[in-house]
Amino acid sequence: MQLTETRRPTLDQALEAIRTRAYWSPHPEHPKAYGESAPAEGLAAFEALKGSRFELDQPGVDGWTGGEVSPYGPELGIEYPHADVDVLLPAMRAGMAAWREAGPETRALVCVEILARISARTHEFSHAVMHTSGQAFMMAFQAGGPHAQDRGLEAVAYAYEEQTRTPAAADWSKPQGKRDPLELRKKFTAAGRGISLLIGCNTFPTWNGYPGLFASLATGNPVLVKPHPRAVLPLALTVRVCREVLAEAGFDPNLVCLAVERPGEGIAKTLAVRPEIRIIDYTGSTAFGDWLEANARQAQVYTEKAGVNTVVVDSTDDYKGMLANLAFSLSLYSGQMCTTPQNVLIPRDGIATDAGPRSYDEVVADLAGAVKGLLGDDVRANALLGALVNPDVKARLEAAAGLGEVALPSREVVNPDFPDAVVRTPVIVKLDGSKPDAEAAYMSECFGPVSFAVSVDSTSDALELLRRTIRDKGAMTVGAYTTSPEVEQAVEEVCLEESAQLSLNLTGGVYVNQTAAFSDFHGSGGNPAANAALCDGAFVSNRFRMVEIRRQA
Amino acid sequence: MQLTETRRPTLDQALEAIRTRAYWSPHPEHPKAYGESAPAEGLAAFEALKGSRFELDQPGVDGWTGGEVSPYGPELGIEYPHADVDVLLPAMRAGMAAWREAGPETRALVCVEILARISARTHEFSHAVMHTSGQAFMMAFQAGGPHAQDRGLEAVAYAYEEQTRTPAAADWSKPQGKRDPLELRKKFTAAGRGISLLIGCNTFPTWNGYPGLFASLATGNPVLVKPHPRAVLPLALTVRVCREVLAEAGFDPNLVCLAVERPGEGIAKTLAVRPEIRIIDYTGSTAFGDWLEANARQAQVYTEKAGVNTVVVDSTDDYKGMLANLAFSLSLYSGQMCTTPQNVLIPRDGIATDAGPRSYDEVVADLAGAVKGLLGDDVRANALLGALVNPDVKARLEAAAGLGEVALPSREVVNPDFPDAVVRTPVIVKLDGSKPDAEAAYMSECFGPVSFAVSVDSTSDALELLRRTIRDKGAMTVGAYTTSPEVEQAVEEVCLEESAQLSLNLTGGVYVNQTAAFSDFHGSGGNPAANAALCDGAFVSNRFRMVEIRRQA
Repeated sequence: MQLTETRRPTLDQALEAIRTRAYWSPHPEHPKAYGESAPAEGLAAFEALKGSRFELDQPGVDGWTGGEVSPYGPELGIEYPHADVDVLLPAMRAGMAAWREAGPETRALVCVEILARISARTHEFSHAVMHTSGQAFMMAFQAGGPHAQDRGLEAVAYAYEEQTRTPAAADWSKPQGKRDPLELRKKFTAAGRGISLLIGCNTFPTWNGYPGLFASLATGNPVLVKPHPRAVLPLALTVRVCREVLAEAGFDPNLVCLAVERPGEGIAKTLAVRPEIRIIDYTGSTAFGDWLEANARQAQVYTEKAGVNTVVVDSTDDYKGMLANLAFSLSLYSGQMCTTPQNVLIPRDGIATDAGPRSYDEVVADLAGAVKGLLGDDVRANALLGALVNPDVKARLEAAAGLGEVALPSREVVNPDFPDAVVRTPVIVKLDGSKPDAEAAYMSECFGPVSFAVSVDSTSDALELLRRTIRDKGAMTVGAYTTSPEVEQAVEEVCLEESAQLSLNLTGGVYVNQTAAFSDFHGSGGNPAANAALCDGAFVSNRFRMVEIRRQA
Repeated sequence: MQLTETRRPTLDQALEAIRTRAYWSPHPEHPKAYGESAPAEGLAAFEALKGSRFELDQPGVDGWTGGEVSPYGPELGIEYPHADVDVLLPAMRAGMAAWREAGPETRALVCVEILARISARTHEFSHAVMHTSGQAFMMAFQAGGPHAQDRGLEAVAYAYEEQTRTPAAADWSKPQGKRDPLELRKKFTAAGRGISLLIGCNTFPTWNGYPGLFASLATGNPVLVKPHPRAVLPLALTVRVCREVLAEAGFDPNLVCLAVERPGEGIAKTLAVRPEIRIIDYTGSTAFGDWLEANARQAQVYTEKAGVNTVVVDSTDDYKGMLANLAFSLSLYSGQMCTTPQNVLIPRDGIATDAGPRSYDEVVADLAGAVKGLLGDDVRANALLGALVNPDVKARLEAAAGLGEVALPSREVVNPDFPDAVVRTPVIVKLDGSKPDAEAAYMSECFGPVSFAVSVDSTSDALELLRRTIRDKGAMTVGAYTTSPEVEQAVEEVCLEESAQLSLNLTGGVYVNQTAAFSDFHGSGGNPAANAALCDGAFVSNRFRMVEIRRQA
């Protein structure tokens, strides 16, 4: 493969993008950009996978397992190879030396090639993401396709840059006055740590999976992909493409393998503490993330766990824009994003707006109205909400209504294409921030379409609660609306001190819950919601070690 | 202070050096380079410190403590402030916001200024290092002075580069077809994590202390310096210079504070788990390093622990050079370096050399002869060996003679300047690598002037033992002598797979136990001897988090 010619320009552009952090993506967002026949072909490819065995030609297959059911209703009926890890893990290490010797550039270009092949099949992947995560098609297309590919490419760029900060070789000559200089010839090799384990999540299998997968692969590590049992297909397709490209490029395809578990098998816990596993990437519950950090001590562990995201509402000069922006943020994918705001903090004496002062009750009512308006039309509601990913989300949604006064009840939406899909609009619950019994609700993550409109004594009270929430519970995102430079500075200060990513006064088409690869950091890695950020030097620099071999010149 | 003018060129040169990894240092190695009066002034400054109270003007002083005794005999009689950490820690956080706002360049330049001031006082520091570590004067001068300052500056360069990989601000404009683009203004701030704790060591208080200290300070963190109770002075002097420069530059001097413990107080353990401590740098025993990694979960923990360093002897085309080089490596600072070779693996059937074949017994006898020759003269022996740092080293040395056949007994050397100094030449003990009862000896770190000449069945047996030693015990250094390209490749492969730094065929004036900042990595961070390397991206990238504040443009 002539990867340097075909893929080096993309790598160079990615390297430039992470330096400038201006907008860039090589992966089109619009479904039409993939050619006229792509939609039908993608759908057909997805349909062909259903009810079949997903062959991967991996070593150590000791059976077949599966059982994914689309949140939209249909059973996928796909069976995946089940691996005997005592066979699989040693086989995965076999290709490591050649992969290391290939060097950072070749590894990066192979990764870029993999991403390009995935990109070409974005329509097929979209259906796979949609029917495992419950995302609406357009969101599955964008977040599961180009945006996920962007995050993967961003990780490749960081990995390449990190490994090439040190030259491959250096001549060292130390003057010794009148005597001959001391001279050494030094060789520096980026050496992967060992097998990297990716523990995938249900809601964003590709978006949350690609950064760790590509960061580890590009730094010389084999990657074992352990998908969420309800979202296997998108990562199984990914593994297949990885293996194809690796083999074509002359490397061992077993550098990327899939580990699918039988129902109740819980292999993540077993795999995570195997001595062969030296890196783990995980997205999911705080409980298991904390367990991994405490117990998988032989590995570098990168976790994205749960947080409680807050929006502070102090004042605005675009009340309508604020309400529309917030309504969209609360609704998108039924709030099933780790970045969706949960607590909207509003002073009980109300706020100043360009439409005049608004009381707490009015702000909440207007926000409820904005959400209701946004989702009033069932077609648009379905396109925005998608389906609830699992019955736990539905149970939490139903329980939330009992936590306080309901400002906006959740509404059942019928999806005519998928009548079995559980589609719900968000509930907005009013909570009194001064009442201790309300705290249990707003200080826990309530993942799903549940928002709390929390009344606070003042903006400074809101900032104190924001600080405490980030410090104790973590946050992937923070939003704030204010026209006051002092308040702006104060909220910035809280976010700088507690290490949280802040979006200020968003009233247009950018939402607090969306981050763009190459420019925005996803999470900070500095508060309890996640110990890593996507993507920065720290995300890649400990996935390999620089081994030096020096000899007398 | 006009730091940009005076110190930016140094920073730029350091940045260039870590990219090329060619030889560079701004800190002269030769004592004469510091001016004619510097030696006497340095000695006088050191003498003036003895028997006095070391004032630092820190908050929360609740008493005075000290008790350092030079390994050369004299009591230093210096008392240091003892801190009430409940007062000290909050005071250290007070200056953090201004330090963060100063930005990466100003922080780096302040650090460079601190190092320049320390450099100007290298003679004074040398005596402080000599009389706490037991290093001979010249070694204390070079390793405790310019080489330590180099490692500090290297960390500053890495920290600066890491923080400036992301621009301070970016304009982001995402095309929307015919509609107006989405536009955001983004601000990126490197925010320190919190207070950084440096737990110093006895043998290399500055060399092992400066990387963590300066990496943390340069990335925006206050640093609390907890020296080893037997080696307080070099770090106390360092803290004093840090505080002076910080104050002169308009920052809070409490960004760097000293925590000296009362005898038996064990404050490292207490401090390490305080919630305010977010970063820890530690050099010392494996037991405490492992404890820190397991228990100081609120902090990023960087450890350098114990390892077992190996030299594989397969063959050589410069037998004399090899023996001379090894003899020096085993003798320098009485083997009290984390990088000193401990196990010399020699095939029992002997090796090929330019002087003809040599049996195992001959190689060991010749090595013993080389060490004996090198240290035959007491003046040179004192200059090379220094003093044993503490009675434990002496006890280990004495016990080692009972572990096997002694090829070279340790010799007492009298130091005429310091008759109370305990000066010993290394012992070389022969062990049979095929006997299980010998393994307990050579598979444990025996810190001090103890070397094991281990007989092995073959070179490939040696490589297997090397692999096992690195994997199970860790290694800061590996050396190998061979004329065979196949053996060379095989030993490289072991080091690449087990992540250890390798020196090949050193026969001149560079020794396996010495690494040069800006070019050589110290440790790999990938085997049990240390979880971090000096210095690389991973050593700095998680000491701060990049906080993004984005707003609609």
